[in-house]
Amino acid sequence: MMLLRSSSASPFARKIRIAADVLGLSDRIEVTPADTSDPAEPLRTQNPLGKIPTLVLADGAAIYDSAVILEYLDFLAGGGRLIPSGEARFDVLTRAALADGVMDAAILTIYEQRWRDAATHSARWLDHQSGKIARALAAFEAAAPDPAAIDVAAIGLACALGYLDLRFGGKWRADHPKLVVWLDAFAAKAPAFEATRHREG
Amino acid sequence: MMLLRSSSASPFARKIRIAADVLGLSDRIEVTPADTSDPAEPLRTQNPLGKIPTLVLADGAAIYDSAVILEYLDFLAGGGRLIPSGEARFDVLTRAALADGVMDAAILTIYEQRWRDAATHSARWLDHQSGKIARALAAFEAAAPDPAAIDVAAIGLACALGYLDLRFGGKWRADHPKLVVWLDAFAAKAPAFEATRHREG
Repeated sequence: MMLLRSSSASPFARKIRIAADVLGLSDRIEVTPADTSDPAEPLRTQNPLGKIPTLVLADGAAIYDSAVILEYLDFLAGGGRLIPSGEARFDVLTRAALADGVMDAAILTIYEQRWRDAATHSARWLDHQSGKIARALAAFEAAAPDPAAIDVAAIGLACALGYLDLRFGGKWRADHPKLVVWLDAFAAKAPAFEATRHREG
Repeated sequence: MMLLRSSSASPFARKIRIAADVLGLSDRIEVTPADTSDPAEPLRTQNPLGKIPTLVLADGAAIYDSAVILEYLDFLAGGGRLIPSGEARFDVLTRAALADGVMDAAILTIYEQRWRDAATHSARWLDHQSGKIARALAAFEAAAPDPAAIDVAAIGLACALGYLDLRFGGKWRADHPKLVVWLDAFAAKAPAFEATRHREG
Protein backbone atom coordinates (compact mmCIF):
# COMPACT_ATOMS: atom_id res chain seq x y z
CA MET A 1 0.00 0.00 0.00
CA MET A 2 1.19 3.51 -0.80
CA LEU A 3 0.42 6.48 1.44
CA LEU A 4 -0.64 9.79 -0.05
CA ARG A 5 0.16 12.54 2.44
CA SER A 6 -2.54 15.01 1.64
CA SER A 7 -5.07 17.55 2.78
CA SER A 8 -8.66 17.70 1.75
CA ALA A 9 -8.44 21.25 0.39
CA SER A 10 -5.13 20.98 -1.48
CA PRO A 11 -5.62 21.31 -5.25
CA PHE A 12 -2.24 19.67 -5.86
CA ALA A 13 -3.27 16.64 -3.80
CA ARG A 14 -6.63 16.56 -5.57
CA LYS A 15 -4.80 16.07 -8.87
CA ILE A 16 -3.26 12.88 -7.50
CA ARG A 17 -6.52 11.53 -6.15
CA ILE A 18 -8.29 12.12 -9.49
CA ALA A 19 -5.41 10.58 -11.44
CA ALA A 20 -5.39 7.52 -9.19
CA ASP A 21 -9.09 7.03 -9.81
CA VAL A 22 -8.80 7.53 -13.57
CA LEU A 23 -5.94 5.01 -13.69
CA GLY A 24 -7.66 2.45 -11.44
CA LEU A 25 -5.00 2.75 -8.75
CA SER A 26 -7.09 4.13 -5.89
CA ASP A 27 -7.20 0.83 -3.99
CA ARG A 28 -3.39 0.83 -3.82
CA ILE A 29 -3.24 4.29 -2.21
CA GLU A 30 -4.26 5.21 1.31
CA VAL A 31 -4.94 8.94 1.63
CA THR A 32 -3.60 10.15 4.98
CA PRO A 33 -3.97 13.77 6.08
CA ALA A 34 -0.87 15.76 6.94
CA ASP A 35 -0.79 18.99 8.92
CA THR A 36 1.87 20.98 7.09
CA SER A 37 2.13 23.48 9.97
CA ASP A 38 3.03 20.82 12.57
CA PRO A 39 6.81 20.58 13.10
CA ALA A 40 6.43 17.03 14.48
CA GLU A 41 4.65 15.77 11.35
CA PRO A 42 6.43 12.76 9.79
CA LEU A 43 5.77 14.59 6.51
CA ARG A 44 8.82 16.73 7.19
CA THR A 45 10.96 13.60 7.20
CA GLN A 46 9.18 12.04 4.23
CA ASN A 47 9.56 15.30 2.29
CA PRO A 48 11.98 17.82 3.82
CA LEU A 49 10.05 20.60 2.12
CA GLY A 50 7.04 19.67 4.25
CA LYS A 51 4.78 19.88 1.21
CA ILE A 52 1.73 17.94 0.20
CA PRO A 53 1.11 15.88 -1.80
CA THR A 54 3.90 13.44 -0.99
CA LEU A 55 3.56 9.79 -1.98
CA VAL A 56 5.22 7.30 0.36
CA LEU A 57 5.91 3.89 -1.17
CA ALA A 58 5.72 0.56 0.66
CA ASP A 59 9.50 0.60 1.19
CA GLY A 60 9.36 4.05 2.74
CA ALA A 61 10.80 5.93 -0.25
CA ALA A 62 8.94 9.15 -0.99
CA ILE A 63 7.99 10.69 -4.32
CA TYR A 64 7.12 14.34 -4.90
CA ASP A 65 6.20 16.97 -6.15
CA SER A 66 2.73 16.49 -7.63
CA ALA A 67 3.99 16.45 -11.23
CA VAL A 68 6.43 13.65 -10.40
CA ILE A 69 3.74 11.69 -8.54
CA LEU A 70 1.41 11.99 -11.54
CA GLU A 71 4.10 10.64 -13.82
CA TYR A 72 4.81 7.80 -11.38
CA LEU A 73 1.16 6.77 -11.27
CA ASP A 74 1.04 6.87 -15.08
CA PHE A 75 4.15 4.65 -15.09
CA LEU A 76 2.52 2.19 -12.65
CA ALA A 77 -0.53 2.06 -14.94
CA GLY A 78 1.61 1.12 -17.93
CA GLY A 79 2.54 4.58 -19.21
CA GLY A 80 1.13 6.91 -21.83
CA ARG A 81 -2.32 7.24 -20.31
CA LEU A 82 -2.09 10.67 -18.68
CA ILE A 83 1.08 11.88 -20.41
CA PRO A 84 1.75 11.11 -24.06
CA SER A 85 5.19 10.05 -25.19
CA GLY A 86 7.27 11.74 -27.88
CA GLU A 87 7.04 15.37 -28.94
CA ALA A 88 3.36 15.66 -27.93
CA ARG A 89 4.42 15.16 -24.33
CA PHE A 90 5.81 18.66 -23.95
CA ASP A 91 2.67 20.53 -24.93
CA VAL A 92 0.68 18.55 -22.36
CA LEU A 93 3.32 19.02 -19.64
CA THR A 94 3.52 22.75 -20.38
CA ARG A 95 -0.24 23.17 -20.07
CA ALA A 96 -0.08 21.16 -16.85
CA ALA A 97 2.61 23.57 -15.60
CA LEU A 98 0.36 26.49 -16.55
CA ALA A 99 -2.44 25.02 -14.46
CA ASP A 100 0.00 24.44 -11.60
CA GLY A 101 1.02 28.09 -11.89
CA VAL A 102 -2.61 29.15 -11.39
CA MET A 103 -2.74 27.06 -8.22
CA ASP A 104 0.59 28.42 -6.98
CA ALA A 105 -0.57 32.01 -7.46
CA ALA A 106 -3.94 31.30 -5.85
CA ILE A 107 -2.31 29.62 -2.87
CA LEU A 108 0.14 32.51 -2.41
CA THR A 109 -2.89 34.80 -2.40
CA ILE A 110 -4.55 32.72 0.33
CA TYR A 111 -1.26 32.57 2.26
CA GLU A 112 -1.27 36.36 2.39
CA GLN A 113 -4.28 36.10 4.69
CA ARG A 114 -3.05 33.02 6.53
CA TRP A 115 0.49 34.19 7.29
CA ARG A 116 0.17 37.96 7.66
CA ASP A 117 -1.84 40.56 9.48
CA ALA A 118 -4.17 42.57 7.25
CA ALA A 119 -2.15 45.72 7.91
CA THR A 120 0.92 44.16 6.32
CA HIS A 121 -0.68 42.82 3.15
CA SER A 122 1.04 43.85 -0.07
CA ALA A 123 -1.38 45.02 -2.75
CA ARG A 124 1.45 44.93 -5.30
CA TRP A 125 2.21 41.27 -4.52
CA LEU A 126 -1.46 40.31 -4.63
CA ASP A 127 -1.87 42.13 -7.97
CA HIS A 128 1.16 40.27 -9.29
CA GLN A 129 -0.43 36.93 -8.38
CA SER A 130 -3.87 37.81 -9.71
CA GLY A 131 -2.27 38.92 -12.99
CA LYS A 132 -0.76 35.47 -13.40
CA ILE A 133 -4.13 33.84 -12.78
CA ALA A 134 -5.97 36.18 -15.16
CA ARG A 135 -3.50 35.70 -18.02
CA ALA A 136 -3.40 31.93 -17.57
CA LEU A 137 -7.18 31.63 -17.53
CA ALA A 138 -7.41 33.84 -20.63
CA ALA A 139 -4.96 31.52 -22.39
CA PHE A 140 -6.96 28.44 -21.40
CA GLU A 141 -10.23 30.13 -22.45
CA ALA A 142 -8.74 31.03 -25.85
CA ALA A 143 -7.64 27.43 -26.39
CA ALA A 144 -9.99 25.36 -24.29
CA PRO A 145 -8.75 21.81 -23.82
CA ASP A 146 -10.12 18.88 -25.79
CA PRO A 147 -13.06 17.73 -23.66
CA ALA A 148 -12.34 14.13 -24.71
CA ALA A 149 -8.86 14.03 -23.19
CA ILE A 150 -8.21 13.25 -19.54
CA ASP A 151 -4.51 13.95 -19.23
CA VAL A 152 -2.32 15.72 -16.67
CA ALA A 153 -3.14 19.11 -18.22
CA ALA A 154 -6.90 18.52 -17.98
CA ILE A 155 -6.65 17.19 -14.42
CA GLY A 156 -4.52 20.18 -13.44
CA LEU A 157 -6.86 22.70 -15.03
CA ALA A 158 -9.90 21.13 -13.36
CA CYS A 159 -8.20 21.28 -9.96
CA ALA A 160 -7.10 24.87 -10.53
CA LEU A 161 -10.64 25.93 -11.42
CA GLY A 162 -12.01 23.92 -8.50
CA TYR A 163 -9.65 25.75 -6.16
CA LEU A 164 -10.79 29.11 -7.52
CA ASP A 165 -14.36 27.96 -6.87
CA LEU A 166 -13.45 26.96 -3.31
CA ARG A 167 -11.40 29.97 -2.26
CA PHE A 168 -12.49 32.80 -4.56
CA GLY A 169 -16.21 32.17 -4.93
CA GLY A 170 -16.00 31.04 -8.54
CA LYS A 171 -15.62 34.60 -9.85
CA TRP A 172 -13.68 33.19 -12.82
CA ARG A 173 -16.89 31.74 -14.22
CA ALA A 174 -18.38 35.04 -15.42
CA ASP A 175 -15.56 35.75 -17.89
CA HIS A 176 -14.67 32.23 -19.02
CA PRO A 177 -17.76 30.59 -20.52
CA LYS A 178 -15.80 28.02 -22.50
CA LEU A 179 -13.97 26.87 -19.39
CA VAL A 180 -17.29 26.57 -17.52
CA VAL A 181 -18.56 24.23 -20.24
CA TRP A 182 -15.26 22.38 -20.31
CA LEU A 183 -15.22 21.85 -16.54
CA ASP A 184 -18.73 20.40 -16.62
CA ALA A 185 -17.63 18.00 -19.37
CA PHE A 186 -14.54 17.03 -17.39
CA ALA A 187 -16.56 16.42 -14.22
CA ALA A 188 -18.97 14.22 -16.17
CA LYS A 189 -16.10 12.10 -17.48
CA ALA A 190 -14.07 11.95 -14.26
CA PRO A 191 -16.43 11.31 -11.33
CA ALA A 192 -13.46 11.60 -8.97
CA PHE A 193 -13.56 15.35 -9.56
CA GLU A 194 -16.85 15.68 -7.70
CA ALA A 195 -15.94 12.96 -5.20
CA THR A 196 -12.79 14.86 -4.17
CA ARG A 197 -14.48 18.23 -3.72
CA HIS A 198 -13.44 19.79 -0.39
CA ARG A 199 -16.21 20.53 2.05
CA GLU A 200 -15.54 22.71 5.08
CA GLY A 201 -16.25 21.48 8.56
CA MET B 1 17.02 28.51 -33.12
CA MET B 2 15.27 28.30 -29.76
CA LEU B 3 15.02 31.27 -27.40
CA LEU B 4 15.59 30.83 -23.69
CA ARG B 5 13.84 33.65 -21.86
CA SER B 6 16.05 34.04 -18.86
CA SER B 7 17.77 36.24 -16.35
CA SER B 8 21.38 36.04 -15.36
CA ALA B 9 20.64 35.51 -11.65
CA SER B 10 17.79 32.98 -11.95
CA PRO B 11 18.81 29.58 -10.55
CA PHE B 12 15.99 27.91 -12.48
CA ALA B 13 17.29 29.38 -15.75
CA ARG B 14 20.83 28.41 -14.81
CA LYS B 15 19.72 24.76 -14.69
CA ILE B 16 18.67 25.01 -18.33
CA ARG B 17 21.89 26.67 -19.45
CA ILE B 18 24.01 24.00 -17.72
CA ALA B 19 21.87 21.19 -19.12
CA ALA B 20 22.12 22.63 -22.64
CA ASP B 21 25.90 22.70 -22.34
CA VAL B 22 26.13 19.18 -20.91
CA LEU B 23 23.93 17.90 -23.75
CA GLY B 24 25.75 19.79 -26.50
CA LEU B 25 22.68 21.87 -27.35
CA SER B 26 23.94 25.35 -26.46
CA ASP B 27 24.43 26.39 -30.08
CA ARG B 28 20.73 25.76 -30.75
CA ILE B 29 19.60 28.06 -27.92
CA GLU B 30 19.82 31.83 -27.81
CA VAL B 31 19.64 33.14 -24.25
CA THR B 32 17.54 36.30 -24.20
CA PRO B 33 16.96 38.26 -20.99
CA ALA B 34 13.42 38.90 -19.84
CA ASP B 35 12.34 41.51 -17.31
CA THR B 36 9.65 39.67 -15.36
CA SER B 37 8.40 42.90 -13.80
CA ASP B 38 7.68 44.59 -17.17
CA PRO B 39 3.99 44.23 -18.13
CA ALA B 40 4.88 44.81 -21.81
CA GLU B 41 7.36 41.92 -21.88
CA PRO B 42 6.53 39.37 -24.62
CA LEU B 43 7.33 36.81 -21.91
CA ARG B 44 3.82 37.32 -20.55
CA THR B 45 2.41 36.15 -23.88
CA GLN B 46 4.95 33.34 -24.27
CA ASN B 47 4.20 32.17 -20.74
CA PRO B 48 1.09 33.70 -19.14
CA LEU B 49 2.65 33.13 -15.71
CA GLY B 50 5.41 35.57 -16.70
CA LYS B 51 8.02 33.20 -15.32
CA ILE B 52 11.54 32.43 -16.39
CA PRO B 53 12.90 30.20 -17.71
CA THR B 54 10.59 29.82 -20.71
CA LEU B 55 11.86 28.13 -23.86
CA VAL B 56 10.39 29.42 -27.12
CA LEU B 57 10.70 27.03 -30.05
CA ALA B 58 11.28 28.04 -33.68
CA ASP B 59 7.54 27.75 -34.40
CA GLY B 60 6.69 30.06 -31.50
CA ALA B 61 5.41 27.35 -29.17
CA ALA B 62 6.64 27.77 -25.61
CA ILE B 63 7.77 25.15 -23.10
CA TYR B 64 7.92 25.63 -19.32
CA ASP B 65 8.46 25.23 -16.35
CA SER B 66 12.16 24.46 -15.85
CA ALA B 67 11.54 20.76 -15.12
CA VAL B 68 9.64 20.39 -18.41
CA ILE B 69 12.35 22.26 -20.33
CA LEU B 70 15.02 19.98 -18.88
CA GLU B 71 13.08 16.93 -19.99
CA TYR B 72 12.58 18.46 -23.45
CA LEU B 73 16.32 19.09 -23.85
CA ASP B 74 17.02 15.52 -22.73
CA PHE B 75 14.49 14.34 -25.36
CA LEU B 76 16.19 16.44 -28.07
CA ALA B 77 19.53 14.88 -27.10
CA GLY B 78 18.16 11.37 -27.53
CA GLY B 79 16.74 10.76 -24.06
CA GLY B 80 18.03 9.11 -20.92
CA ARG B 81 21.05 11.35 -20.46
CA LEU B 82 19.84 13.64 -17.67
CA ILE B 83 16.81 11.61 -16.57
CA PRO B 84 16.92 7.82 -16.44
CA SER B 85 13.99 5.78 -17.69
CA GLY B 86 12.09 3.16 -15.71
CA GLU B 87 11.70 3.05 -11.96
CA ALA B 88 15.04 4.85 -11.35
CA ARG B 89 13.52 7.93 -12.95
CA PHE B 90 11.39 8.81 -9.95
CA ASP B 91 14.18 8.97 -7.40
CA VAL B 92 16.09 11.37 -9.64
CA LEU B 93 13.01 13.49 -10.35
CA THR B 94 12.15 13.61 -6.64
CA ARG B 95 15.64 14.80 -5.71
CA ALA B 96 15.39 17.36 -8.50
CA ALA B 97 12.08 18.52 -6.98
CA LEU B 98 13.78 18.78 -3.58
CA ALA B 99 16.46 21.02 -5.08
CA ASP B 100 13.76 23.09 -6.80
CA GLY B 101 12.06 23.45 -3.41
CA VAL B 102 15.25 24.93 -1.96
CA MET B 103 15.30 27.48 -4.77
CA ASP B 104 11.60 28.27 -4.34
CA ALA B 105 12.05 28.88 -0.61
CA ALA B 106 15.19 30.95 -1.17
CA ILE B 107 13.46 33.06 -3.82
CA LEU B 108 10.44 33.64 -1.60
CA THR B 109 12.87 34.82 1.07
CA ILE B 110 14.46 37.29 -1.36
CA TYR B 111 11.01 38.39 -2.55
CA GLU B 112 10.20 39.38 1.03
CA GLN B 113 12.79 42.13 0.65
CA ARG B 114 11.95 42.91 -2.95
CA TRP B 115 8.17 43.18 -2.64
CA ARG B 116 7.63 44.45 0.89
CA ASP B 117 8.72 47.22 3.22
CA ALA B 118 10.90 46.05 6.09
CA ALA B 119 8.18 46.97 8.59
CA THR B 120 5.81 44.45 7.03
CA HIS B 121 8.15 41.47 6.84
CA SER B 122 6.80 38.28 8.41
CA ALA B 123 9.33 36.51 10.64
CA ARG B 124 7.04 33.47 10.75
CA TRP B 125 6.93 33.23 6.96
CA LEU B 126 10.70 33.65 6.67
CA ASP B 127 11.26 30.99 9.35
CA HIS B 128 8.95 28.67 7.45
CA GLN B 129 11.03 29.11 4.29
CA SER B 130 14.40 28.78 6.03
CA GLY B 131 13.14 25.59 7.71
CA LYS B 132 12.46 24.06 4.29
CA ILE B 133 15.96 24.99 3.13
CA ALA B 134 17.64 23.65 6.28
CA ARG B 135 15.81 20.31 6.18
CA ALA B 136 16.43 19.85 2.47
CA LEU B 137 20.15 20.62 2.79
CA ALA B 138 20.40 18.22 5.75
CA ALA B 139 18.83 15.50 3.61
CA PHE B 140 21.24 16.16 0.75
CA GLU B 141 24.20 16.24 3.15
CA ALA B 142 23.13 12.90 4.67
CA ALA B 143 22.91 11.33 1.22
CA ALA B 144 25.27 13.34 -0.92
CA PRO B 145 24.75 12.72 -4.64
CA ASP B 146 27.00 10.46 -6.66
CA PRO B 147 29.75 12.82 -7.84
CA ALA B 148 29.99 10.86 -11.09
CA ALA B 149 26.39 11.55 -12.18
CA ILE B 150 25.32 14.70 -13.99
CA ASP B 151 21.56 14.37 -13.99
CA VAL B 152 18.67 16.75 -13.36
CA ALA B 153 19.00 16.23 -9.59
CA ALA B 154 22.69 17.13 -9.60
CA ILE B 155 22.15 20.14 -11.86
CA GLY B 156 19.31 21.31 -9.62
CA LEU B 157 21.30 20.88 -6.42
CA ALA B 158 24.28 22.73 -7.87
CA CYS B 159 22.07 25.65 -8.90
CA ALA B 160 20.34 25.70 -5.52
CA LEU B 161 23.69 25.84 -3.70
CA GLY B 162 24.95 28.44 -6.18
CA TYR B 163 21.91 30.59 -5.44
CA LEU B 164 22.53 30.31 -1.69
CA ASP B 165 26.10 31.42 -2.38
CA LEU B 166 24.85 34.37 -4.43
CA ARG B 167 22.07 35.64 -2.17
CA PHE B 168 22.90 34.32 1.31
CA GLY B 169 26.67 34.60 1.44
CA GLY B 170 27.32 30.88 1.26
CA LYS B 171 26.41 30.38 4.92
CA TRP B 172 25.31 26.82 4.07
CA ARG B 173 28.94 25.83 3.58
CA ALA B 174 29.88 25.76 7.27
CA ASP B 175 27.43 22.99 8.14
CA HIS B 176 27.49 20.90 4.97
CA PRO B 177 31.06 19.76 4.30
CA LYS B 178 30.03 16.87 2.06
CA LEU B 179 28.01 19.19 -0.15
CA VAL B 180 30.95 21.59 -0.40
CA VAL B 181 33.12 18.75 -1.68
CA TRP B 182 30.34 17.55 -3.96
CA LEU B 183 29.79 21.00 -5.48
CA ASP B 184 33.49 21.34 -6.26
CA ALA B 185 33.39 17.95 -7.99
CA PHE B 186 30.28 18.95 -9.94
CA ALA B 187 31.84 22.24 -11.04
CA ALA B 188 34.95 20.39 -12.21
CA LYS B 189 32.86 18.05 -14.35
CA ALA B 190 30.40 20.65 -15.68
CA PRO B 191 32.33 23.78 -16.67
CA ALA B 192 29.02 25.47 -17.50
CA PHE B 193 28.41 25.79 -13.77
CA GLU B 194 31.22 28.32 -13.42
CA ALA B 195 30.49 29.88 -16.82
CA THR B 196 26.91 30.64 -15.81
CA ARG B 197 27.76 32.18 -12.44
CA HIS B 198 25.88 35.48 -12.04
CA ARG B 199 27.98 38.57 -11.52
CA GLU B 200 26.39 41.80 -10.38
CA GLY B 201 26.79 45.02 -12.30
